[in-house]
Amino acid sequence: MPWFKNLIKISTTILNQPSSKSITPFASPPLTQFFLQFTKDYSTNIGSKHAGMEPTKTDQKPRIVVLGSGWAGCRLMKDIDTNIYDVVCVSPRNHMVFTPLLASTCVGTLEFRSVTEHIGRIQPAISREPSSYFFLANCTGIDFDKHMVQCQTVTEGVETLEPWNFNISYDKLVIASGAQALTFGIKGVKEHATFLREVYHAQEIRRKLLLNLMLSDVPGVTEEEKRRLLHCVVVGGGPTGVEFSGELSDFILRDVHQRYSHVKDYIRVTLIEANEILSSFDDRLRVYATKQLTKSGVRLVRGLVQDVQPEKIILSDGTDVPYGLLVWSTGVGPSPFVNSLDIPKAKGRIGIDEWLRVPSVQDVFSIGDCSGFLESTGKQVLPALAQVAEQQGKYLASMINRMGKEGGGHANSANKMNLGNPFIYKHLGSMATIGRYKALVDLRESKEAKGVSIAGFTSLLVWRSAYLTRVVSWRNRFYVLINWLTTLIFGRDISRI
Amino acid sequence: MPWFKNLIKISTTILNQPSSKSITPFASPPLTQFFLQFTKDYSTNIGSKHAGMEPTKTDQKPRIVVLGSGWAGCRLMKDIDTNIYDVVCVSPRNHMVFTPLLASTCVGTLEFRSVTEHIGRIQPAISREPSSYFFLANCTGIDFDKHMVQCQTVTEGVETLEPWNFNISYDKLVIASGAQALTFGIKGVKEHATFLREVYHAQEIRRKLLLNLMLSDVPGVTEEEKRRLLHCVVVGGGPTGVEFSGELSDFILRDVHQRYSHVKDYIRVTLIEANEILSSFDDRLRVYATKQLTKSGVRLVRGLVQDVQPEKIILSDGTDVPYGLLVWSTGVGPSPFVNSLDIPKAKGRIGIDEWLRVPSVQDVFSIGDCSGFLESTGKQVLPALAQVAEQQGKYLASMINRMGKEGGGHANSANKMNLGNPFIYKHLGSMATIGRYKALVDLRESKEAKGVSIAGFTSLLVWRSAYLTRVVSWRNRFYVLINWLTTLIFGRDISRI
Repeated sequence: MPWFKNLIKISTTILNQPSSKSITPFASPPLTQFFLQFTKDYSTNIGSKHAGMEPTKTDQKPRIVVLGSGWAGCRLMKDIDTNIYDVVCVSPRNHMVFTPLLASTCVGTLEFRSVTEHIGRIQPAISREPSSYFFLANCTGIDFDKHMVQCQTVTEGVETLEPWNFNISYDKLVIASGAQALTFGIKGVKEHATFLREVYHAQEIRRKLLLNLMLSDVPGVTEEEKRRLLHCVVVGGGPTGVEFSGELSDFILRDVHQRYSHVKDYIRVTLIEANEILSSFDDRLRVYATKQLTKSGVRLVRGLVQDVQPEKIILSDGTDVPYGLLVWSTGVGPSPFVNSLDIPKAKGRIGIDEWLRVPSVQDVFSIGDCSGFLESTGKQVLPALAQVAEQQGKYLASMINRMGKEGGGHANSANKMNLGNPFIYKHLGSMATIGRYKALVDLRESKEAKGVSIAGFTSLLVWRSAYLTRVVSWRNRFYVLINWLTTLIFGRDISRI
Repeated sequence: MPWFKNLIKISTTILNQPSSKSITPFASPPLTQFFLQFTKDYSTNIGSKHAGMEPTKTDQKPRIVVLGSGWAGCRLMKDIDTNIYDVVCVSPRNHMVFTPLLASTCVGTLEFRSVTEHIGRIQPAISREPSSYFFLANCTGIDFDKHMVQCQTVTEGVETLEPWNFNISYDKLVIASGAQALTFGIKGVKEHATFLREVYHAQEIRRKLLLNLMLSDVPGVTEEEKRRLLHCVVVGGGPTGVEFSGELSDFILRDVHQRYSHVKDYIRVTLIEANEILSSFDDRLRVYATKQLTKSGVRLVRGLVQDVQPEKIILSDGTDVPYGLLVWSTGVGPSPFVNSLDIPKAKGRIGIDEWLRVPSVQDVFSIGDCSGFLESTGKQVLPALAQVAEQQGKYLASMINRMGKEGGGHANSANKMNLGNPFIYKHLGSMATIGRYKALVDLRESKEAKGVSIAGFTSLLVWRSAYLTRVVSWRNRFYVLINWLTTLIFGRDISRI
C-alpha cells in the first residue's frame, strides 16, 4: 500500500543552523535535448485523419465497444468479463452520473462529486489493460457491415485543438447512448431553460440560484425585479421535477431563511405540470405529495407552456409567468444520433428484440433509454428509467460473457448460438423525495397492481438506504453519507464557485 | 435545532390499498393574482441608476464598508463588533478562498468547497442583521470627500440583466481589494496561461489536465502531440508554484499511473524559475526541496519566459517549450482599481501610515496585498502574504471597535482620537509542501535570523495541522480532513465535471 509506505518512511531533517554557503539549487538541465522530442510543425500533429483501432485478430481478445456511460452502459461494463473481452467505451463524459441523487446537488444537499463515478472505478480494466480504453468522444456514425464506429473527439475547453475523427472496429457493439430532454418544439426552451440531466446542469442551476439571491439584495433593484429574480419555476411534475422542487423548498426554509434573511420573503417556487404530478405513483401518495409540497410553499400550477422568453414564460391560457430560474424536466426522447441511424425504430428509439439485439444487423445490441422493443416482439417499449437500463445492462453483460466463453466473442461468430432466456423487465417500484425529510415509496409492480406504498419520514429512510447501497463505489457511499450529515448539522454551502 | 425536530417528527403514512378514486391533485390556483405583482415593462426594473445606501444618521449604528473578501477583509469582518457597527462588504465573490490549500484542489487532493468559506460563516451579521449586507459587486470609484463608494454589480451568467451602478456611503472604509497576478508585460500570458489565485483557476486547471490526459489517449494523436498535451509547465518557483508542482507529481505517481496507465510515460512537469526556487526559505531547505522535486520527476529549469504562444512558450535563450497546461505563478502587483485611485502610493500600492490609515483622507484604511507603508513611515512595504493580511485585519478590527466604543464610529468623528500602538508585523515563518508527503517549515523570523527550519514528513504534519487549525469553519475543517483521508485511501477523483 503506497500510503502505508509513506507513513513509515518518516524521513525528517532537522536543520537548526542556517547555512551561509551560497547554493545553486539546480543546474541548467539539458533542456534542448528534451524539447527536441517535440516536432516543430504542429500542422502534422494528428497522425492521420482516420486513425483508429483495426479489427481484432482471432488470437486476440475480442473487443466490445460500448457507446455511452450512463446506467445501461456502466452496468454492462461493470459485469463484462475482461478475461474474455477488451472493453472500449466511447462517451462525451468520463463518468456515470448517479441521476436519482442529482436533484440534491443543485442546492448543495449533496456535492457534485458525490454523485459521479469515474468509469475506471466501474470497470478498472479500462485504466489498466493495454487494449481496453475510454475515449472522450461522440459517435458520429456506424458502419454495420464493416463492424466499425466513427467517432469524433470532444475537445471542449482546448482552443488549440480541432476535434478529430477516428474509427473503431468492434466485435460486439452495445449502443447505450441514452436519450435527450424533450422540449416539444416549444420556442426558447433550449436557450433559456436549464435541464436537469447532467452534472453541469446542476452546477448551472446552483450558480444561477445563488447569483439571483445575491443580485436581488443589491440596492437599485425594484420590488418587481426582486420577485422575478427569486421566482424559481420548474416545468414538469415527474419525479425529477418534484424532487427538485422539494429540495428547493428545503433550501429556502433552512438556508435562505438563515443566510439571506433580507430577501427570504421574496423567493417562491412554482411547479407547472400539464397533467398530474407523479402520474406513475399511487393516487394516495400523489395526494400526500401535493399536500406536503403546498405546505412547504411550492405553488402547484396546472398549465401548458406555450413560449419561453428570456425573463418570462407564457402559458397557453395567456398568463405571463416571470422567472429568475427556469428548470425544464418534461421527460426524454430520441437523440439526434439515434435519429440518424438507418435501422428499424420503435417509437423513435432503436428497435431491439427480446434478447436486446438490433435484429437487422450482426453483433449489435442496444440498451437503456435509446432503445425500445420492436412491435414484432409483442412487448411494450419500456419507460426511460434507471432500473430498466440497469437490468438490461446486467442481462446483456451476462449474455455476452456467455457468448465469449462459448467461442462466439469475435465478429460474426455467434450467429447460431443459443441465446438463453429473453430479457424480462421486473419493475421494482418508484421512489421520490418531496422535501422536509419526507419521501414516497411505491413498491407496486405496476400502476394497477396491489402492493405496499408508503409516504413520510420512513420512506425517506427507505429512499436513502436504497440509493446509498446502489451508489457504485465505497468512496461515494462515504461522501453521500458525509454530505447528508453536514447538511443536517451545518446547512448547505452557499459559496458561489 | 431544526434537524432534531425533523428527526422526532416521524410522520409516516402506510397505505396498503391503492385507491381507485380519481383525484385532482391540485386545484387551479389564483395564478393571475400572484403574477400581477410583476410589472410588465422590464425596462423600468432598476429603480434608479444610482440608488444606494444613504449616510447613516447619528442615532443609527455607524457603517463600515469593506472592499474585498480575502484574508485581510475577512479577518477584519470576523472581529468587527456588530453591536457597534453595521458591516457592508462589497466583493466580486461571496466567499473567502483559503489560498494555502488552493494548489491541492487542482488535482483533487482537496475539493474546491473545502477551501472556500462563505462570508456569512465568517461574519454572521451579514446574513442576519437588517442593515448589514454583502453585495456581489466591484467598486469602481471612491469619493473620499463625500464618504461614498461607487459600485457596479457582477451579473456574470445572467444574460437578461445589465450590470447596474449604486453608491454606498460609509462611516469607515476599509480597502482590502487585494492584488493581481503579475505578467511582467509578457505577451500571451493572460490569454494562454492559467493563474492560481481563485477557485475558478483551480477548476480550470483540473478540467484542462483531465481533458489532456484523455485526449492524448485517443487514436490519431501523434507521439509529439501526446508529449505536448501532457507537458505541464509551471512558471514561477515561489511557494505556490512549488506546491502545485509537488501536487502534480503526486497526482502523476499515484493516480495517473493507476488510472491512465496507457499514457503515464508521457506526462512531465517542468518548473521554470528565473532565479532560485523558494528564495525566501532557508538554503538547506531549498536544497532539500530541489532534490525531492527532482526525485519526483519535476524538471527544474532556470529560464526567463519571453513569449507565450497557444501551444508553446519561448524562453529568452530561444528555446521553445511546448506545453499542454501552463500555470503562471510569478507573484502579484497592483490591480487596475488601485492604480485608478488618486492617493499617494507606496510601490504602486495604496500608501498607509503605521495605523493602516490612508493619511491623506478621513476614515479610510487599507490592509492586505493592496496596501503598503508610505516612505514617510520609515517602514518597508510588507510582502504580499496571507499572514500579513490576517494580522492587519485583526489589528484594524480592534482599533475600529475601540473607536466605535469611544464614540468615534461615525464619519469625521474620530479625528483627534488616540489610536494606540501602531501596527507591527510579526513574521511567523514560511511553509510549503513539496509532494510525496513532505513539506518545508521555516520558522525563522527573517531570512537572516537564526531559528528552527525542518523538512520532511514531520514538516508535513506541522503544515497540515497549522493550516487545519486556521481554516475558519468547523465544516471545512471536517471536510479538509475527510478529503485528505479519502485521497490516501481511494486516490483522487478524476471525473471531469
